[in-house]
Amino acid sequence: MESIGHFLLRRLREVGISHVIGVPGDFNLQLLEQFSEVEGIEFVNSTNELNAAYAADGYARQRGIGALLTTYGVGELSALNGVAGAAAEHVPVVSIAGAPPLHAMRSGLPLHHSLTDGNYINVERAFGQFVAGTARLTPGNAVAEIDRLLRLAILEKRPVHIQVPSDISYLEIDTPSEPFQAPRLTSDPTNLADAVVAIADLVNGAEKPALLIDLEAKRYGWADVLLRIARENGIRWATLVTSKAVLPETDPLFAGVYGGANSAPEVKDLIEGSDALLAISPRFIEVNSGIFTQALPENTVKIYADTTFVGTHVYEGVAAADLLSKLADSLHRAPASLAHKPARTFEAKADAKLDQNSGRLWEQITDFVRPGDVVVAEAGTSYLALGGQTMPEGVDYTSSNIWGAIGWTLPVTFGWQLAAPDRRHLLVIGDGSFQLTAQELSTILARGQKPVIVLINNSGYTIERYILGHESHYNDIAPWDYASLIAGLAPNADLRTFQARTEGELASALSAVSDGEGGFIEVIVDPLDAPDALVKFGPASARFDYGRRGPELPNLG
Amino acid sequence: MESIGHFLLRRLREVGISHVIGVPGDFNLQLLEQFSEVEGIEFVNSTNELNAAYAADGYARQRGIGALLTTYGVGELSALNGVAGAAAEHVPVVSIAGAPPLHAMRSGLPLHHSLTDGNYINVERAFGQFVAGTARLTPGNAVAEIDRLLRLAILEKRPVHIQVPSDISYLEIDTPSEPFQAPRLTSDPTNLADAVVAIADLVNGAEKPALLIDLEAKRYGWADVLLRIARENGIRWATLVTSKAVLPETDPLFAGVYGGANSAPEVKDLIEGSDALLAISPRFIEVNSGIFTQALPENTVKIYADTTFVGTHVYEGVAAADLLSKLADSLHRAPASLAHKPARTFEAKADAKLDQNSGRLWEQITDFVRPGDVVVAEAGTSYLALGGQTMPEGVDYTSSNIWGAIGWTLPVTFGWQLAAPDRRHLLVIGDGSFQLTAQELSTILARGQKPVIVLINNSGYTIERYILGHESHYNDIAPWDYASLIAGLAPNADLRTFQARTEGELASALSAVSDGEGGFIEVIVDPLDAPDALVKFGPASARFDYGRRGPELPNLG
Repeated sequence: MESIGHFLLRRLREVGISHVIGVPGDFNLQLLEQFSEVEGIEFVNSTNELNAAYAADGYARQRGIGALLTTYGVGELSALNGVAGAAAEHVPVVSIAGAPPLHAMRSGLPLHHSLTDGNYINVERAFGQFVAGTARLTPGNAVAEIDRLLRLAILEKRPVHIQVPSDISYLEIDTPSEPFQAPRLTSDPTNLADAVVAIADLVNGAEKPALLIDLEAKRYGWADVLLRIARENGIRWATLVTSKAVLPETDPLFAGVYGGANSAPEVKDLIEGSDALLAISPRFIEVNSGIFTQALPENTVKIYADTTFVGTHVYEGVAAADLLSKLADSLHRAPASLAHKPARTFEAKADAKLDQNSGRLWEQITDFVRPGDVVVAEAGTSYLALGGQTMPEGVDYTSSNIWGAIGWTLPVTFGWQLAAPDRRHLLVIGDGSFQLTAQELSTILARGQKPVIVLINNSGYTIERYILGHESHYNDIAPWDYASLIAGLAPNADLRTFQARTEGELASALSAVSDGEGGFIEVIVDPLDAPDALVKFGPASARFDYGRRGPELPNLG
Repeated sequence: MESIGHFLLRRLREVGISHVIGVPGDFNLQLLEQFSEVEGIEFVNSTNELNAAYAADGYARQRGIGALLTTYGVGELSALNGVAGAAAEHVPVVSIAGAPPLHAMRSGLPLHHSLTDGNYINVERAFGQFVAGTARLTPGNAVAEIDRLLRLAILEKRPVHIQVPSDISYLEIDTPSEPFQAPRLTSDPTNLADAVVAIADLVNGAEKPALLIDLEAKRYGWADVLLRIARENGIRWATLVTSKAVLPETDPLFAGVYGGANSAPEVKDLIEGSDALLAISPRFIEVNSGIFTQALPENTVKIYADTTFVGTHVYEGVAAADLLSKLADSLHRAPASLAHKPARTFEAKADAKLDQNSGRLWEQITDFVRPGDVVVAEAGTSYLALGGQTMPEGVDYTSSNIWGAIGWTLPVTFGWQLAAPDRRHLLVIGDGSFQLTAQELSTILARGQKPVIVLINNSGYTIERYILGHESHYNDIAPWDYASLIAGLAPNADLRTFQARTEGELASALSAVSDGEGGFIEVIVDPLDAPDALVKFGPASARFDYGRRGPELPNLG
C-alpha cells in the first residue's frame, strides 16, 4: 500500500525528475507536505505560475522531462500558456495541479477558484486543447492514469496535465512496486526493413546527399547516430534554426542553418540541390523557413519519430531510432576528409559603439560562449541574430522559435540551471521581454545560481518596430534601472552588474563574468538598431500578417 | 463604409471604454495602429498579459466594462486566468486578441504562436470554457459578432473573447452608423406583478424583515434602490463579504457582514432570525459563508438579475431592476429612526509593535480610508481582515474573494486608476502575492499614478501557513528590498517609501502619504502574526480541503 501522493512523486523521480517547480495554494499544500516522504525529489518555489511552467520547460529541455505544480483554476490557468508552449515545442512537461476535494467537485459545490456554477471540467477541457492527455485522479484510476500520462509524455514529447483532488493525496492504494518502465517507440519489422533498404539505396547511389535536421532529433536523442551517419559517409548537414546546434556546429560537415530563401547560398545549394536529402523531422513554419520559401528537392526522405516518408511511400510504425541505427550500418559511402574550420575570434575595438546591425555585437557575445555552455536566446533581436552565429561544441542552444512567447527565457534559464547546475548558462534577452517575467531573477539568485545575463536595452520592442509601428508609442516600454532592480529582487545576492555601450566596455564586462560567478550586463543600443536578420524578417512578416489591405508599412530606408 | 478595426474600437468607446490595456504582438499591431483613427480611446501598455487582464478587470469594476488586447496564443493564453477570474466575479471584460491572417487559419498553415498542427480553434475553445461568448471575426460576421458579444457582456456581466485576424482590420464593410444601444433585461409583466405582490405582502406583514446583499447588486447598480427600500421601511441589512460596501457601511441600518457561523451574533440573528429576508443575488461559497454554514430562514426571497424565488415559487423573466423599483413603491413600513453610528477613530500607540492578531493594524489602516476612496484588498490576511472593518461612505472596496487569484490586486489598482484618476486608491497587499505581478508597479508609476500601497511583509504566504505547512519552506519567499525594487522599476518616479514596525511609524507614514502624492509603506510583522479571521479560517479550510485522511494539521496553539 502506498499513498496516491507518494506514488505520484515516486513516479516523477523514477522518470528522472528531481525538482518540481511551482507555487503553493491551498489545494496543493497536502501534496507539498508529501515531498518530505520521497527521497530525491524537491519542490522549488517560483514567483508565479507562468514562470514556473516556463522553468519546468527549461528543466525538461535538459533532463528530457520536467514537472510543474500549481493550484486549481487560478494557478493552472496562469500556467497554461507555458504548457501550451511546451506542446508547440515538443517538450514533455508534467503539469500537476492540486484540485478541490473529489466529493466537492463531484457534487458541484460552489468553491473559490471555480466559476461557482458547479462546473469542474472547464479547466481540464482548456488544458485538453493543448496537451497529450489529461486526468483527474481518483483512488480508482490513480495508478492507471499516472502511468498512462507519463508514458504519453515520454513517447510523444508533449506535456500532460494531472489534477490531484486535495482530499485523496494521503489515501493508500495498491500500487506497483516495480519502478516505472520508460516506453519506447517500436517498429513494424517489415516496414522498417523496407524503409532502410529504400533509403540506403537512394543515399548510396547519390552524388550530393545531404542531411537537414530539425527538432525531434534533439527531443528524441538522435544526435549521435546522425553524427555517425554524416561522418562515416561524408554527408554534409544543415539544421533548421528550431534545432540549432543539435549536432556540433564546429563539425567540418556542418554547412549552416537552412531557412528557405533566407539561407546562405552554400546552404541553400546543399539542401535544395541535393539528390538524396534526409530531412529529419522537418517542421517548416514561417519563422524558420523564410516565410515558407523552403524548396526541398524531389529525392527527399522525411524521417519523423514514428513515420518515414520516402518519395510517395509512407512507412507507418517505423521508429526513427531503429531506422537511423540500421541506416548507419547500411550506408557505405566514403568518409569526408574536410578540415576543421578555424575557430573565429573576436577582436574588440575599444571605442566602437555597440551595434547589432553590423553583426559585431553578436559576434562578440558568441565569442564568449565556451564548449558545453547553455545559451538561451530570447524572442526578438537575440534569437534572430544568434540563430546565425556558430556555437562551440557541446553547447545547448535554446529559444522559443515556434511558440514565440516573450519573457520565456528568464524562467527557462532558472529551470535549466536547476537541472544542470554545473553547466554555465548564458541568457541573452531584450528589455521588452525581460519585463514580462523579471521577478524570476529573485528565485534564480536566492538559489545561488550564477547565470550570465546579457540584456539588450533598446528601449522597447524593436522586433515589433521592424514589423509595424516603427516609432509608435505602443512599442515603447517604461525604462528600468537594472542595478536597483536586482538589488531589490535579491538584496543578499550581490550579482555584479555592468553597462556597456562600446565594444571595449562589453569586453571588460564579459571578461569579468568569465570567472563563473555570473553577472548582469546591460548592453545599450539604439532603439532602431537591428540585426540584419530582423531588417529582412520584419517587413516580410508585416506583408504576410497584414496582407494587401493592411496599414502602411514603415519606411525602413 | 468603415474598417473592421475602426468599428470595433468605435463600439468599445460607445460602451464606455476609453482605455484598452494590453501588450503588443505582431498579430495585433495593425489594430494598435488604428487607435489613432478613433477619438477618445487609447491603448495602454501593460508589462504582461496576465497583468493586463487583471487591470482590465479593475477598470471594468469602475466603468462597468473594460477591455484587454493581446496577441494570438502566447498572449491570450497568458491572460486566460485573468479573464476566467472576471467570469467568476461577474465582471464584463472584452478580451480582444489579434490572430493570424484569416486565410492562414482557414488553410491550417503552420505558424509561430500555434501548435503548428493546423489547429486554430484550440485557443477559442479554451476561452469558451469560461466566457459568455467567443468569436473569430470575418468581414462577414464582424458587425453581428461584435454587437452580439458586447450585448452579452453587458447583459450577463461576463467576459467575452474576440479574435481579430491580422489581415482584416483595415477591410471596409457596411456598419451601422447608429451608436451602440445598451441592452437591458426586460420583465414578463405578469411574473413581475405577481412577484412584487408576493414579496410586498410578505415584507409588509413581517416583524423582522431584513436584507442580505451580494455581488450582483454591485454589478447591476441596484445600490440606490436598495438603500431606498431599506431607509423608507426601516429594514436593516447585511452584505456578504463578496459585495462588501456596496451600500454605505456607515448607514445606521447596516448590521455588518454575514458569513454563516463566522458572523457577529447580531448579524447572525438579523439574517437567520428574519421572518422576511430579501436576499439579493446571494452566492454562497465556502469562503463567504463560514464554509457553508449559512442558514437562511424559511421566508427567504432570492432576487437575481433575471429570476426571483419566493419560497417554492420561481419567477423567471423578472428583471431585478424592475422588481426592486416596483417593490420600493409597494412597501409601506415605517422608516427607522436609528442614530448614525459614531465614527471610530484610531489612536496610535507610538511604540506598540504592529500586529494583525489584535486587529489594531487593520483598524489603523482603515482609519486612513476617506469617503470616496477605492480600497483594493489582496487575497490573504489583507482581505480576511479588511472584510471585517467598516468602510466610510462612497468607498469602493474590492477583492478577489471568489476567484482568489493572488497577485491580482496590483494590476487591478493600475486599471482602476486609469478608469478613475481622480479617486484616491489604497492597495493593501501581502509580500507573497506582490511577487506574482510586481512589475506592474512600473506601469503605474510611469503613468504618474499615485496610489498608496501598504505591503504586509510577513516573509511568505501566511494564509497558507494557517492552512498547512506552518513552518514549511514552501510557504517562504525570497526577501525583497522594496525601496531598491521601486527605484529599479520606476527610476524617474520618486515614489516615497516607508517601513513601519510600530504603530507610531505607520502613523507617520500614513500621515505623510495623505497628501495625495502616493507612497509605498512596508509594514513588517511576524510570519505567524495573523488576523483573527485567518486563525479561524485556516484550520477550517484545511479540514474541508484535506478531509479525514489528510496530513497532520499544524498545532496553532
